[in-house]
Amino acid sequence: MAKHVQVVVVGSVALDSIATVSERRKDLLGGSCSYACAASSLFARTGMVGVVGTDFPSRHVQLYTKLGIHIAGLQTVPGKTFRWSGVYEKDMINRRTLSTHLNVFASFSPQLPADYQNAPFVLLGNIAPDLQLHVLSQARKPRFVVADTMDLWINIARKPLMKLISRVNMVTLNDGEARLLTGEHNLRKAAADILRAGPEYVVIKKGEHGAILFSRKGIFIVPAYPIDEVVDPTGAGDTFAGSFIGALAGHKKIDEKAVRESLLYGAVVASFCCEAFSLNALARLKRSDVAHRLLALRDMTSCG
Amino acid sequence: MAKHVQVVVVGSVALDSIATVSERRKDLLGGSCSYACAASSLFARTGMVGVVGTDFPSRHVQLYTKLGIHIAGLQTVPGKTFRWSGVYEKDMINRRTLSTHLNVFASFSPQLPADYQNAPFVLLGNIAPDLQLHVLSQARKPRFVVADTMDLWINIARKPLMKLISRVNMVTLNDGEARLLTGEHNLRKAAADILRAGPEYVVIKKGEHGAILFSRKGIFIVPAYPIDEVVDPTGAGDTFAGSFIGALAGHKKIDEKAVRESLLYGAVVASFCCEAFSLNALARLKRSDVAHRLLALRDMTSCG
Repeated sequence: MAKHVQVVVVGSVALDSIATVSERRKDLLGGSCSYACAASSLFARTGMVGVVGTDFPSRHVQLYTKLGIHIAGLQTVPGKTFRWSGVYEKDMINRRTLSTHLNVFASFSPQLPADYQNAPFVLLGNIAPDLQLHVLSQARKPRFVVADTMDLWINIARKPLMKLISRVNMVTLNDGEARLLTGEHNLRKAAADILRAGPEYVVIKKGEHGAILFSRKGIFIVPAYPIDEVVDPTGAGDTFAGSFIGALAGHKKIDEKAVRESLLYGAVVASFCCEAFSLNALARLKRSDVAHRLLALRDMTSCG
Repeated sequence: MAKHVQVVVVGSVALDSIATVSERRKDLLGGSCSYACAASSLFARTGMVGVVGTDFPSRHVQLYTKLGIHIAGLQTVPGKTFRWSGVYEKDMINRRTLSTHLNVFASFSPQLPADYQNAPFVLLGNIAPDLQLHVLSQARKPRFVVADTMDLWINIARKPLMKLISRVNMVTLNDGEARLLTGEHNLRKAAADILRAGPEYVVIKKGEHGAILFSRKGIFIVPAYPIDEVVDPTGAGDTFAGSFIGALAGHKKIDEKAVRESLLYGAVVASFCCEAFSLNALARLKRSDVAHRLLALRDMTSCG
């Protein structure tokens, strides 16, 4: 019997060139879809929807397969793969983009293969809202849809973005983006504005400071797991979203409690992501590593 | 039978002139000692150690007394009271100091009145490390001593500061100051460095993002209670420290659990502090308000 895909993830697949204060790496496997799928696949059968060029190294596709990621939705088209290049400051938080070459990503038209279309969980990674809507329209019976976004779409595609927001269960965005979208500096007020637009949940991400979940039922403060050394924070937000939806897919009942618990998994897996370049930490991660760090994080938020 | 002072707080007493984007206030009652005593006195009999000039309005002294703060250690000397003036940016976090007039504070020599000297809990607010050491030397049997500090003393008085740090139970400082003191950007490593200097506990404050407690027993992530509107964040750090030590004084056994619980009280009372100028919110606060918000904060960090 074929095992059905539980989680569909759409996003970018990229080759990243990254410089930190101490290291410099070229053409690393990256992109929101790569990180989110690697994270989600720890917990659930995950199908990738993305596009690469004919220059995309086959070893990266082999890694996806090795991690159990379904790649029927990964298109290979003539041309070059999306490339991003950036430099991190000493704080390992602020970064400057050196170059972005969309290449084949510029004409990406995401398609859900037949065996993805009944997947109950959908993560619409940070791509143009029109493309996110296009993917959503192909999902036949989604139970829970998460949409991530960024400042670019708030600035140039606000109308389709608001349409998207009204149709999903959860929106994730960072604090600056929540302020940009709503014009509210206060995060409670910004989140309330976004909730009024339709979603049940808003997650405001704050990088090393964790995240905050807002829903009609209340607020949940998602702590960040404090790590000893940040090697490369690229993809941490995508990893957070991917492990969240993967963990959520393991719950029978999708309620506030399930959402809160799954966000803790997101925080834990994202912390591992930052401990190595590319998918290196995620690829070697075991369920037991995750469970161990989750217990540690729970202890860090309990009075004992 | 005379009730003994349980908590001694030394720090500044100031008249603050503060401008935010929407409001401007002159000669408000402020200073680390005022905020910390108002907060501590919610939980414990608290004795103030500070200095004011002859211009200090008697209504402020009356407020201290009304709040139950012991003022035997508040000296009034010829001259003007310490004055600070600053402007907050729109984010209500970053601020610029317009002027600092030390006035009578410049020659402050803190003295513990006889009935303070046996107090088991001591909060050494942010003043010169030599003065903090001078106060500490007058405490006969302290059970738990907290020292707060700031970048100024790290830069100009590192030697006495390190001596102080080696003699207290807990050091509190903000993230930038922890990095400045240790040269370590990573907060776990910075905290480990400070713990090696002697204290049992280090609390790294992160403003609106909460704080992190580090001890040899582990890490406790102290969440910030998210408020709807920040009116004036001045004194929030002092309020956090004051309510922490006041709440700690209510515990029979001073252990990691008591410290963690007391830090949550610190977070809650600090959130009230930001909802009004000066001590206005703290002065009208009831124990029931604190208890209610503490329950809410616990819910915000639990999966339910």
